[in-house]
Amino acid sequence: MTDRTFASRHIGTSSADQDAMLKTVGQPSLDALMDACMPALIRSRDGLALPAAVSETQAQAELAALAAQNRPARSMIGLGYHGTHTPAVIRRNVLENPSWYTAYTPYQAEISQGRLEALLNFQTMCTDLTGLDVAGASLLDEATAAAEAMLLARRAASSAKLASRESAQRHTGDVFAVDQRVLPQTLAVLRTRAEPVGITLAVADLTDPAALPEGAFGILVQYPGADGTVHDWTPAIEAAHAAGALVTVAADLLALALLASPGELGADIAVGSTQRFGMPMGFGGPHAGYMAVRDRLQRQLPGRLVGVSRDSADAPALRLALQAREQHIRREKATSNICTAQVLPAVIAASYAVWHGPEGLRGIAEHAAGQASRLAASLTQAGIDLAGSAFFDTVTAVAPGRADDVLTAAAERGVNLHRVDADTVTIACDETTTAADLEAVCAAFGIALAAPPAANAVPAALRRESAYLTHPVFTAHHSETAMMRYLKRLADKDYGLDRGMIPLGSCTMKLNAAAEMEPISWPEFADVHPLAPADQTRGWQTLIEQLEGWLADVCGYAAVSVQPNAGSQGELAGLLAIRAWQHDRGETDRDLCLIPASAHGTNAASAVLAGMRVVVVACDEAGNVDLADLDAKIAQHADRLAALMVTYPSTHGVYEETIVEVCARVHDAGGQVYVDGANLNALLGWAKPGRFGADVSHLNLHKTFCIPHGGGGPGVGPVAVAEHLVPFLPSDPMAAVAGPVGPVSQARWGSAGILQIPWMYLRMMGGDGVTAATASAVLAANYVAARLRDHFPVLYTGAHGLVAHECILDLRELSKVSGVTVEDVAKRLIDYGFHAPTMSFPVAGTLMVEPTESEDLAELDRFCEAMIAIRAEIDAVASGAVAVEDSALRAAPHTAAVVTSEAWGRAYSRAEAAWPAGVTAAKYWPPVGRIDNAWGDRNLACTCPPIEAFGE
Amino acid sequence: MTDRTFASRHIGTSSADQDAMLKTVGQPSLDALMDACMPALIRSRDGLALPAAVSETQAQAELAALAAQNRPARSMIGLGYHGTHTPAVIRRNVLENPSWYTAYTPYQAEISQGRLEALLNFQTMCTDLTGLDVAGASLLDEATAAAEAMLLARRAASSAKLASRESAQRHTGDVFAVDQRVLPQTLAVLRTRAEPVGITLAVADLTDPAALPEGAFGILVQYPGADGTVHDWTPAIEAAHAAGALVTVAADLLALALLASPGELGADIAVGSTQRFGMPMGFGGPHAGYMAVRDRLQRQLPGRLVGVSRDSADAPALRLALQAREQHIRREKATSNICTAQVLPAVIAASYAVWHGPEGLRGIAEHAAGQASRLAASLTQAGIDLAGSAFFDTVTAVAPGRADDVLTAAAERGVNLHRVDADTVTIACDETTTAADLEAVCAAFGIALAAPPAANAVPAALRRESAYLTHPVFTAHHSETAMMRYLKRLADKDYGLDRGMIPLGSCTMKLNAAAEMEPISWPEFADVHPLAPADQTRGWQTLIEQLEGWLADVCGYAAVSVQPNAGSQGELAGLLAIRAWQHDRGETDRDLCLIPASAHGTNAASAVLAGMRVVVVACDEAGNVDLADLDAKIAQHADRLAALMVTYPSTHGVYEETIVEVCARVHDAGGQVYVDGANLNALLGWAKPGRFGADVSHLNLHKTFCIPHGGGGPGVGPVAVAEHLVPFLPSDPMAAVAGPVGPVSQARWGSAGILQIPWMYLRMMGGDGVTAATASAVLAANYVAARLRDHFPVLYTGAHGLVAHECILDLRELSKVSGVTVEDVAKRLIDYGFHAPTMSFPVAGTLMVEPTESEDLAELDRFCEAMIAIRAEIDAVASGAVAVEDSALRAAPHTAAVVTSEAWGRAYSRAEAAWPAGVTAAKYWPPVGRIDNAWGDRNLACTCPPIEAFGE
Repeated sequence: MTDRTFASRHIGTSSADQDAMLKTVGQPSLDALMDACMPALIRSRDGLALPAAVSETQAQAELAALAAQNRPARSMIGLGYHGTHTPAVIRRNVLENPSWYTAYTPYQAEISQGRLEALLNFQTMCTDLTGLDVAGASLLDEATAAAEAMLLARRAASSAKLASRESAQRHTGDVFAVDQRVLPQTLAVLRTRAEPVGITLAVADLTDPAALPEGAFGILVQYPGADGTVHDWTPAIEAAHAAGALVTVAADLLALALLASPGELGADIAVGSTQRFGMPMGFGGPHAGYMAVRDRLQRQLPGRLVGVSRDSADAPALRLALQAREQHIRREKATSNICTAQVLPAVIAASYAVWHGPEGLRGIAEHAAGQASRLAASLTQAGIDLAGSAFFDTVTAVAPGRADDVLTAAAERGVNLHRVDADTVTIACDETTTAADLEAVCAAFGIALAAPPAANAVPAALRRESAYLTHPVFTAHHSETAMMRYLKRLADKDYGLDRGMIPLGSCTMKLNAAAEMEPISWPEFADVHPLAPADQTRGWQTLIEQLEGWLADVCGYAAVSVQPNAGSQGELAGLLAIRAWQHDRGETDRDLCLIPASAHGTNAASAVLAGMRVVVVACDEAGNVDLADLDAKIAQHADRLAALMVTYPSTHGVYEETIVEVCARVHDAGGQVYVDGANLNALLGWAKPGRFGADVSHLNLHKTFCIPHGGGGPGVGPVAVAEHLVPFLPSDPMAAVAGPVGPVSQARWGSAGILQIPWMYLRMMGGDGVTAATASAVLAANYVAARLRDHFPVLYTGAHGLVAHECILDLRELSKVSGVTVEDVAKRLIDYGFHAPTMSFPVAGTLMVEPTESEDLAELDRFCEAMIAIRAEIDAVASGAVAVEDSALRAAPHTAAVVTSEAWGRAYSRAEAAWPAGVTAAKYWPPVGRIDNAWGDRNLACTCPPIEAFGE
Repeated sequence: MTDRTFASRHIGTSSADQDAMLKTVGQPSLDALMDACMPALIRSRDGLALPAAVSETQAQAELAALAAQNRPARSMIGLGYHGTHTPAVIRRNVLENPSWYTAYTPYQAEISQGRLEALLNFQTMCTDLTGLDVAGASLLDEATAAAEAMLLARRAASSAKLASRESAQRHTGDVFAVDQRVLPQTLAVLRTRAEPVGITLAVADLTDPAALPEGAFGILVQYPGADGTVHDWTPAIEAAHAAGALVTVAADLLALALLASPGELGADIAVGSTQRFGMPMGFGGPHAGYMAVRDRLQRQLPGRLVGVSRDSADAPALRLALQAREQHIRREKATSNICTAQVLPAVIAASYAVWHGPEGLRGIAEHAAGQASRLAASLTQAGIDLAGSAFFDTVTAVAPGRADDVLTAAAERGVNLHRVDADTVTIACDETTTAADLEAVCAAFGIALAAPPAANAVPAALRRESAYLTHPVFTAHHSETAMMRYLKRLADKDYGLDRGMIPLGSCTMKLNAAAEMEPISWPEFADVHPLAPADQTRGWQTLIEQLEGWLADVCGYAAVSVQPNAGSQGELAGLLAIRAWQHDRGETDRDLCLIPASAHGTNAASAVLAGMRVVVVACDEAGNVDLADLDAKIAQHADRLAALMVTYPSTHGVYEETIVEVCARVHDAGGQVYVDGANLNALLGWAKPGRFGADVSHLNLHKTFCIPHGGGGPGVGPVAVAEHLVPFLPSDPMAAVAGPVGPVSQARWGSAGILQIPWMYLRMMGGDGVTAATASAVLAANYVAARLRDHFPVLYTGAHGLVAHECILDLRELSKVSGVTVEDVAKRLIDYGFHAPTMSFPVAGTLMVEPTESEDLAELDRFCEAMIAIRAEIDAVASGAVAVEDSALRAAPHTAAVVTSEAWGRAYSRAEAAWPAGVTAAKYWPPVGRIDNAWGDRNLACTCPPIEAFGE
């Protein structure tokens, strides 16, 4: 191929640029730079076994050949995955639009109002349909949402403050009761999650209130059940409440368009999946899980919550609410390790609800229910028994001894059904089910398709009467023109990588290339049910095997599992593997996890969820793990040491010289070493954690491996392990016999539907490409550090004063003398046309900058010049020339409305406000001014506000 | 399917909205409205034979089944169509991005700066590579560009002013000489175009200067030739110049990366295709043709020309230059009937050059040349003769008697070659050609692939030494991140349908639905060569047959040809059909075309190009064709009457009651009736031109049938004819025996590559859908007329005071009393967030508004309220409260830079400037202020200006 290599397109700086940058950094070459900053001990000399890079076109052709090995059939398997029509206007304008998918998590709320509004729509949709009060901005999937509900129920039930007046007795036990109709993958994940934290699962037929086990702090029921049957859970709920237990209903949101809501039945919590709201099945994910709760539980909600607050001009403005409860603040005291959400799938689900509106959703639900009832009529008229007479869209047929034959006959007709056992077949209908599909199913049973019955099979007593989706947003955009414009208006409010640099330390906001992204829309990948027969999914299997192999290679491990659908789940899976291996060796007392003070908060939260206690290891003044303290902690805890969990390069952005020694000391003490892969972008091609001392890592495919952040998810967090831990990787949730470690996600391969992205990345980069990318990223960080060092102290450096792939700019002294905060600088950067670096992590009062290899030199310089100009603004405050309260720094960001207001009278000019150096006519205008977070938390509102709130 | 019908998504107003609108209009129902405004005589009672509508999903599934019937093989056919890799970053961010494809022609230059910049890149690319001085913003295809060059050469050669000093003799003849190596489709189109205007074509071997025919006003040579050979045309050019003839070189732009440019060889004009710059072959089109000329010919350039001017703040600003020469101004005196350009393909080609830069392009050219020379070496080493030894990427092999066998053998290996005759095969290499492809070709010849030779076969004397693409834009965006951002910055400058309404009278800016657009990217359609064997293109053939049938049905004609790739070409084809039919009947004197004064200027220009004289028929005070004048003109011209060309509903936006009578009188006089289909959106489903008196129409698929305007093209203008004219539809340009009318476009099915869009539209709408759409469009226009009538007189109305699908707002009286011009109102609408309606057509001093059926009521109301607010602003000027020079109207549009400037001191507030009623935070900011058109025409500059021009 004659086109330039993909690597040269992915890496932003040309070799001429790099020469100039190296001069600034004071290094003669990239190799010299890497030699100078990376300890020789960890350097990998065996290279990468990745296949040699091919062009965009060639890689897509190879991937298309894999796609062609999948044979998507009509799926009527159900079990939480349903056919759905992604409206083309949403596919094109959201899923395939970089303005949506390249955006970061909405921590900088002022420049994230578009997706925050979409998430507020999501939350409103969930609260409306579930009949509960507050819903979060999405969870990872239905099964992990159920696990979070279990943990929430235990916290709430054990909290005296939450004792409900009507509860006759207080809970004391550790039992979580699950109805037998729960989805099998949900049960499997609950088992994984219950055991380490001391919860006993009890599976029972909870339609009988008497079956409620003693000592249950909570119950979970599926609505409709996995077999499709619909039950009135009111008696069970009343019994649970009477026993002091909280009730979680795992509910199908589409079914709730026709069924009385969990809230109306009395539930405390509802969880589920929004997959069938327009997200393709994607061989298992990603899909947005949801959780909705009663008001009194809102501060217990895991994950992200969007709330309405107000900005500096008193206008309504959205932002993440109640962040103080999250794992990055509370660490091991957090209520959950959930860090990311499923923003892009949640935006799609919410947009699907906006597009269809209440009438449209009801129509879709009625279609699915109508098809199911017609199928049921056909079966019963032919004398085939059903598992129940009340159902929504799924029918379970009892055909003694015939299940396998029926499945085979259906598959021959292009339809996949679900085999429950040799006598039982479940058939799920959905939005896409046609009469021809029903005919195929009937033919597989050897019966005729009957006429549609007069009514569907939703029992009268459970028919929904209450309204939902009554906010105008769900009715205002039903023409495609209106919808396209609404989606564009939202996107226009946000700042993504398509506008400029997002230099977030530890988050590796690099290019998400179009050639990587396109294949996720290919129907041969997107339209595959995760439980489709293996002979229909050869392409998927090969893709995953290859990717797992390549990931294992680049990290120096024996095996990788792509199952964890977020970094936090990867951490949990890795720690569970360590724990299971140690238990398997009889070392059941090892329950202590050492974590350096500089670690991501998620590490500690995950350790707790893996059943471990956390002990913090100090860092020395240079930011490195304090070896003396490490020795002391090891000595102190001796036989209880399970693991050390450390990030490399450290979250201080430095290659610690002692990492090999640290690993050795932990191993000597009988512990295992977990290297957090968050900073793998500083290692790839140059060092392999599996080779320099680690036993396990998780990788962040949404960082180093180019899956976009999606505005706050999906992330993908595969777990990678050394040989001895391979048997302890997470199990298939549908496995008849679970392995020693259960599943951590509901789908065997997690968010398979986006694994094409890292596959394409590695295929187009090859070993040389990723190696060059790493060095280019390190060069970019050192260039920024070198250019800014005189203006902002660089907090930690390693050998030769060099950093790794990111650098920490220390503002503490400047803040002290000027009163200008890191927040002021972050918001002021918006006026300069930038997303802020990471604020106050890992050190309060600092900004952590990770430019990545994908930024070009012009953009790096534009950023450095903005920071230098801001330093001058800080100096003006420090010198007393302008009071901090009157400064452009404190008033930032400046909206167009502010800068065009009639009155001005500020200490700085309009031009200084809006057109600081380097800002051109292509300026990005923030839609709101600085947001008052505290006010929003005091006045919590997490659903769409009335239109009037946005009035003059 | 349970999703709402597509029609309900396409039509912006709900039935509740329509009820409210009908009240405003004063009609009880849609049917009553249509009864009231459309003459009963023309109403079609036989309905539409379109298949019933299906859902988005179902229609795409049916189209996918057609796609699957195409079997794209590797094309090595050449002949002006080559394999190319569309860079994914361009495909996703331009071709598949509504911000690019829904935009209108850049007549409102202030809100079109993004695509004007892209087109300036295109022009710079063309001038650089051709070595000429000025290039236009694209033409329809290479063959029609050659025809335009022929006409330009005749005009220029016959103009005394242009006599070049060195020419020894003056041209007097009407001969255009064409070298025998010209592409066959170019020759076919030249034949079509030469005869009606009295030009004699002479085909000769022009490598021999002595072969130049007597009396030639121009010559055309192909470089490289259709057989791949490269010749030094200097002697031919010198001979032509000596004879007073102008020289056109049809040149492959990619070849010019390696070959001395036409300018360096001495050519006056260069034409060609930019298809291989990233545009898929698409079974023939659309692709951007180009034309570049010497400075002295610049005012003769056909089509659009982008030039640099300055705005009200003296900043550089782009706009269409020299518009006074265009057909909509000069009508029958125009130099060309070209109205649209190929903006979207031109943007893609220019972006391809930006992406690859000079080095990248040279590399791609060297790859293609290298593959060809390797193939040539293989052939010659095996003893197979070649047609020549100097070539670029295409090799012609002489294999006596074996051509058919070789083609068959190659096809079996998945490669298509070109059969010249039984003894001769041409093989074209390109960017995508691999060694495996060469092996397949060699195998087809039964020979082995040789090693690559040391050098390619470009002759040393013709090797390019001069630089090209030296402007920084061609080197600044080579990383994907940089390119993505550049494309977004450009898109952000522009106003498309994705922002709001574009109420352009006569242009029907309706929804271009995502489900319609997606299939144009499907490789099974996109990657097909127009000359691929028929058994590989069954899907294409069926799609075209079905679409032609549906179009014939909805317009009431016997047959349709989709060949014309713009409305202007459809007009020409229709008039040529009339002329050929009359000549066939011996009526060779009929050469007169009656055209009402209100007609599009293109009509008159097309008539001239069809060899007709134009006689204008007056309109009466009500805007209708003046029957008395019609009778007089018919009587006066009696036997010379060829045709009447009339638009229906008229360009005045009214259903003329007399249309049937008008048609009858023309027929009675022996003339034919041509109904311009520009306003078909007011007829579809309710009336069929082919049934109420017309013999021929052209349709604008980019208006009524949802092909997007693409920012100014591609358009598609099929010609539809009654039974007696069917034999006179345009021929296949590759037909061995041409029909009575030759081809009007270079590809048999014109811009086939976008016909999926109207196919999807008609398939998803069905007869009921299009019928409802028409009535909804008429209702919307009448609603706007009713709401604005009290503020702006509605110039023409028909029965019951109703308009058809558009209305003309008369500002003449207001302008007289206030000095406020239509331009002031148009530019002020930008401040209100709207694209202006059509200005001063068909009546100077008016605005013509066509809202279409796709706008929702909220947007219609927003527009009406903006117009009402502007009326109040005009009143303030008229009352003397503010001088027109000081008004916001005259200063409009207001950029962010202006409204945020420190000094203000205007007669109106900043808020009035930027935030007039109805404008929200999602405001669109124009990137430049009002542009000085005259200054730009006086200081013509049509290539990328130096970066410094954009400095402070």
